[in-house]
Amino acid sequence: MELSKRQQQILDIVRAEGPITGEQIADQLGLTRATLRPDLAILTMAGFLEARPRVGYFYAGKKTGQIFGDQLRKMLVREYKAVPINIAENTSVYDAIVTMFMEDVGSLFVVREGGQLVGVVSRKDLLKVAIGNQDTREVPVSLAMTRMPNIVTVTGDDTVYDAAKKLIEYQIDSCPVVRPLDETGRNLEVIGRFTKTTIAKVFVELGENREV
Amino acid sequence: MELSKRQQQILDIVRAEGPITGEQIADQLGLTRATLRPDLAILTMAGFLEARPRVGYFYAGKKTGQIFGDQLRKMLVREYKAVPINIAENTSVYDAIVTMFMEDVGSLFVVREGGQLVGVVSRKDLLKVAIGNQDTREVPVSLAMTRMPNIVTVTGDDTVYDAAKKLIEYQIDSCPVVRPLDETGRNLEVIGRFTKTTIAKVFVELGENREV
Repeated sequence: MELSKRQQQILDIVRAEGPITGEQIADQLGLTRATLRPDLAILTMAGFLEARPRVGYFYAGKKTGQIFGDQLRKMLVREYKAVPINIAENTSVYDAIVTMFMEDVGSLFVVREGGQLVGVVSRKDLLKVAIGNQDTREVPVSLAMTRMPNIVTVTGDDTVYDAAKKLIEYQIDSCPVVRPLDETGRNLEVIGRFTKTTIAKVFVELGENREV
Repeated sequence: MELSKRQQQILDIVRAEGPITGEQIADQLGLTRATLRPDLAILTMAGFLEARPRVGYFYAGKKTGQIFGDQLRKMLVREYKAVPINIAENTSVYDAIVTMFMEDVGSLFVVREGGQLVGVVSRKDLLKVAIGNQDTREVPVSLAMTRMPNIVTVTGDDTVYDAAKKLIEYQIDSCPVVRPLDETGRNLEVIGRFTKTTIAKVFVELGENREV
């Protein structure tokens, strides 16, 4: 929502002098109360101002970015997650790299039979092994991966915002989307993949004028 | 901006039946024209509806996402770009990988003396060499890199939105931010790095209620 010049002036006045009545704002702008009515209604309903009877308008502290943020934090990982690519623990580093190229992904999830997540392996992890002196065909991926319980995960119910924050905070490019495999809550099953590519796609979608 | 239930009803009516007069909308909702006036003012000023004298209201096609998108497309690459990490053409693949780990980046830019961009090398490019049968210490990075003029670039004046779209479109994780090095326009100088991490950071910032 873009504010008109007059709406911006009203906001500035209320920010500096609120609580302030509609009359007083109109006086300062050299306008009638009636002229200001639609602007005040818009600013109030959009959350920029709050109005209290017999007190006047005061600044609600909601800025454009905040309204933006409110919208943004309604998007759930469930709706945006990508398909996970899983491999077995005894897969060689070489085969893991080949799988990465074939599937065109930047990370693979290592799972046991029955679906239990045991590790995550990234391009970075594999590069580290590849420049070592070992034969990548001989080293199992389990020696290169990040293991449970050190894996950063998100759930389908997390917001895209929270998930994005996690990737930034832990400086990782992606993480598995999981759900509990049993009642202990310690064994997790992979149901998706959340990556910086996911975020970039959501970002572009937002910019494309589509409904959020 | 969040719409009230009544505002949403008005939008639905106008979308289905517009152009339609305020009176007619009021009739359908069983309300008076006066009651609807603030809602119609808000919807019009926020860009959801357009009003034409003697015709009535019609749907302007501006949805929440669109207003969102307008804001989003004001952010420039210049303000968000990261520091570029440059290497020379004769750097070995091994040393490039080490530089990547030391600098904690996913791509390096290959530049000539004088600052001219000649290539870009990603983790993916380096992994490809690393699983080959060559010694990574013997292979120069110039054999693994994407070369000019095949490099996808952005400028500081591009919007973050357009840059994000480029990364998605070309399926790359990052690209150099460049400016012309001379008048031919064919020789480019690297002035920054634009990555999916940049986008993720902007996304989180937007969600954090900060002013855009």
